[in-house]
Amino acid sequence: MASMGLAPAEAQTAVTRASFTPPRPGHLIDRVSGHHKVLVLGAGPAGLVTAYELLKGGYDVQILEARSRPGGRVWTARNGVGETDLNGETQLCEFSEGHFYNVGATRIPQHHISLDYCRELGVELLAFGNQNANTVVHYSGDTPLNNTSITYRQAKADTFGYVSELLAKAVGRGALDDELSQADKDALSEFLSDFGDLSSDGRYAGSSRAGYSGPPPGAGTAYGDQLEANALSDVIRSGIGRNFSFDFGYDQAMMMYSPVGGMDTIYYRMAEAIGAHRITYGAEVTGFSTGDNGVNPWVTYTSQGFEQKAEADYVVCALPPHLVLKLKHDLPQDLVTALGAAVPASAGKLGIEYSRRWWEEDQWIYGGASNTDMDISQIMFPYDHYQSDRGVVVGYYNTGEKHQKFEGLPHAQRLAMALDQGAKIHGDVYRDDITSSFSGSLMKTKYSEGAWVDWKGAHSHSHNDTPEYRRALEPVGRMYFAGDHLSNAIAWMHGALESGRNAVTAIHERVAVGG
Amino acid sequence: MASMGLAPAEAQTAVTRASFTPPRPGHLIDRVSGHHKVLVLGAGPAGLVTAYELLKGGYDVQILEARSRPGGRVWTARNGVGETDLNGETQLCEFSEGHFYNVGATRIPQHHISLDYCRELGVELLAFGNQNANTVVHYSGDTPLNNTSITYRQAKADTFGYVSELLAKAVGRGALDDELSQADKDALSEFLSDFGDLSSDGRYAGSSRAGYSGPPPGAGTAYGDQLEANALSDVIRSGIGRNFSFDFGYDQAMMMYSPVGGMDTIYYRMAEAIGAHRITYGAEVTGFSTGDNGVNPWVTYTSQGFEQKAEADYVVCALPPHLVLKLKHDLPQDLVTALGAAVPASAGKLGIEYSRRWWEEDQWIYGGASNTDMDISQIMFPYDHYQSDRGVVVGYYNTGEKHQKFEGLPHAQRLAMALDQGAKIHGDVYRDDITSSFSGSLMKTKYSEGAWVDWKGAHSHSHNDTPEYRRALEPVGRMYFAGDHLSNAIAWMHGALESGRNAVTAIHERVAVGG
Repeated sequence: MASMGLAPAEAQTAVTRASFTPPRPGHLIDRVSGHHKVLVLGAGPAGLVTAYELLKGGYDVQILEARSRPGGRVWTARNGVGETDLNGETQLCEFSEGHFYNVGATRIPQHHISLDYCRELGVELLAFGNQNANTVVHYSGDTPLNNTSITYRQAKADTFGYVSELLAKAVGRGALDDELSQADKDALSEFLSDFGDLSSDGRYAGSSRAGYSGPPPGAGTAYGDQLEANALSDVIRSGIGRNFSFDFGYDQAMMMYSPVGGMDTIYYRMAEAIGAHRITYGAEVTGFSTGDNGVNPWVTYTSQGFEQKAEADYVVCALPPHLVLKLKHDLPQDLVTALGAAVPASAGKLGIEYSRRWWEEDQWIYGGASNTDMDISQIMFPYDHYQSDRGVVVGYYNTGEKHQKFEGLPHAQRLAMALDQGAKIHGDVYRDDITSSFSGSLMKTKYSEGAWVDWKGAHSHSHNDTPEYRRALEPVGRMYFAGDHLSNAIAWMHGALESGRNAVTAIHERVAVGG
Repeated sequence: MASMGLAPAEAQTAVTRASFTPPRPGHLIDRVSGHHKVLVLGAGPAGLVTAYELLKGGYDVQILEARSRPGGRVWTARNGVGETDLNGETQLCEFSEGHFYNVGATRIPQHHISLDYCRELGVELLAFGNQNANTVVHYSGDTPLNNTSITYRQAKADTFGYVSELLAKAVGRGALDDELSQADKDALSEFLSDFGDLSSDGRYAGSSRAGYSGPPPGAGTAYGDQLEANALSDVIRSGIGRNFSFDFGYDQAMMMYSPVGGMDTIYYRMAEAIGAHRITYGAEVTGFSTGDNGVNPWVTYTSQGFEQKAEADYVVCALPPHLVLKLKHDLPQDLVTALGAAVPASAGKLGIEYSRRWWEEDQWIYGGASNTDMDISQIMFPYDHYQSDRGVVVGYYNTGEKHQKFEGLPHAQRLAMALDQGAKIHGDVYRDDITSSFSGSLMKTKYSEGAWVDWKGAHSHSHNDTPEYRRALEPVGRMYFAGDHLSNAIAWMHGALESGRNAVTAIHERVAVGG
């Protein structure tokens, strides 16, 4: 590939993981000869990165974007943002200057190339709280620890304590002698004693890790009243540990990051680097022909009320697959069938601006999320403007059926539901000092009509190996496709950005051998 | 107490923890009548907060501070900082503008009143990475996973996987039937399956949580090569899980915070609020009399080469207890004996400025720390200036015997040892692109001579209930004592700040009833 002009980043020998090749910003080492025009459909992350990287190689690039802004589903709600959803309701975001939440992508793991583009584009980063000992779990059920709020701190202390006690006991009883040597058992007991904070008799009898019922240990004789251990059966049966694994996930483990000022900052910067004259906003694609056999592909679109047509040597279609199918097109039937297997998913958020950061002042919560099995699923606390006089809390970020209960509603009803459930978790303070709110449901957002797609029959978002997926990866004529749906990092910018890079590589390799 | 003038913060009913009363900045609601002069010894956190809160109440306050700066052990190494240590070596910190590390306190948990003072003083906060899936553990030993670097990500995936598998197996064998009902067993199995990422047959067969040997899942057919599970016995016997509990600790659990620009920013701001005319820097206390029976306490000190004497209605001594004993004093013998039980501890750090953030670019590490049983104990990565062209890595933060191996050495030898051990953990890159370095050993730092104290016979730093500790809490005559050593949050600013507040309360209550 290096000989074709696209140089992969030089292998970095991270000594701790010799085979790791950290993603580096893609760069074209040779410029193409001759004039090659590429039309990019969509100014989301995939479309923008395609244009951005092609420009480095000397291509003539134009982007058509239906919206009046870059970023696509990477959409940040801040003051002045307005949107009429597909329910017909218009909302105007009235958050205070500088305050925002990300309706779409909101966090970046350390291994995603999204961070490389932040570096390249000078986008400043903030740590994103994807875990917090002081946020709470609140699950319904019929055990003593259900239908109440318990800090992660306490839930983890008790769960890890009892898990450790039980395993230590089983080991001591010889129940695992066929699995473990004496040396294994000794080492395991040592680990469990520390992991569970077991007392010298091997029992979990509570831990300072759980926290204190009053003020924490302080000066003088303020020793703090350590919370007592909840009963083993209550801890286990309440299911308070059901979400602990969330941030063990490869893409969710701390540390996580997010741009200062909102996630879309990356794409505003990328659009700026591409140049305003190369992006036509308000251009709604209506159809296309994929071209070839010497015929160039072309695209029809409406702009300023007129039907227009654009032609290019290549087209990169970075539109959601389910929306492509709604256009006039000449795609082969097998691809149409394949794209039909990409099923759009529901997800959305609602942001509430408060004029007092009660979560910090009253509940010692600085960032992170509380989790529940109520429909709101989670409440996310802001990761910026700490200790200022206001802040935006995400009152729900939910997906699938839980989000579907919200997306058909007018905003006022969404807010009412969010407040009812949020107040059950964080108290009546949840209803106080609200200055404004704004919600976005991506299934009900024009030009998105979905938060992401799920490929029917795929193993997971990180392993899309179905025949339909593989078919959708292939170009047709002189049209290439890009988007997070063509990746194993669906719903992550990383997937969209890598997919755009792949389209760049494919076009550049084709041009290099004579187009 | 409210009637005495010191109003405790109004109880905040955090619904999730009804009995929690979050600490709020202390404030005096009534001003004292008459003129009351208080002399404060030491401008560390305890001394400064004493003066700061007394001033709110209308007291006449003067601070004597031996150093030329506020903050005491809260000491930030940045450009221009110079120090001659007790070994006689002078170092000048030459880090680039804006870059620093905190030789002393470096992180604040969400429940500490240190954050309240940040709010009150307008000190901006950054999230502090106290956990990172991409940092590594590197422990010596004789198993396959020793003497090599393993990401926390992988160490946790394997450890939690096998712990879950083993416990699920023991439960399945009925080994814990006397402890668990069938409902318990069902709930526990469900938890373990998720917690350990077990396969459907209940075994741990590796997990994407561990990460990938090459690039992570990306676009197209880049599915990633998931790391294979290490063998159960290797995982357990290597002890790679020995540090997992670190951030379960009440004071160490995420989220954690630190001020923009360095921890001492809090105390520079506090000193500014107190007023430069109320702080005499370069004033080294040489002795004192505790006063009473109508006689005021007085203090002798040297300033600008002259022996001087100051008298006041009250003195608050916020000096380290082991240094108090070196002064000329009239403390009663039982207090002298008590203070002798406060044993100073060794700790220190060494900061290395690199002109390339190799940890981010090559190893995807943004903040957090790697841990080892080598003498350096840990390597801490910067939590600010992400993706800039340089940054300061803390090459060791160690305590006790491990730090004693460094504190007696000249800086060049400290650095050489740090680089040797660091390179074993993070590779040869650890030796490249170094622009400058600076180390601080608090036992070898004049006016500190210790990182903190341990009370002989105390249960822990958070439960100092020995007779000596309790004796040291009491005032003598008109002299009060403050410092983190008089708290159950030793080595934390929280303890020092609360201790200072306690001195304020005690003096104010005494003045209120006629002194």
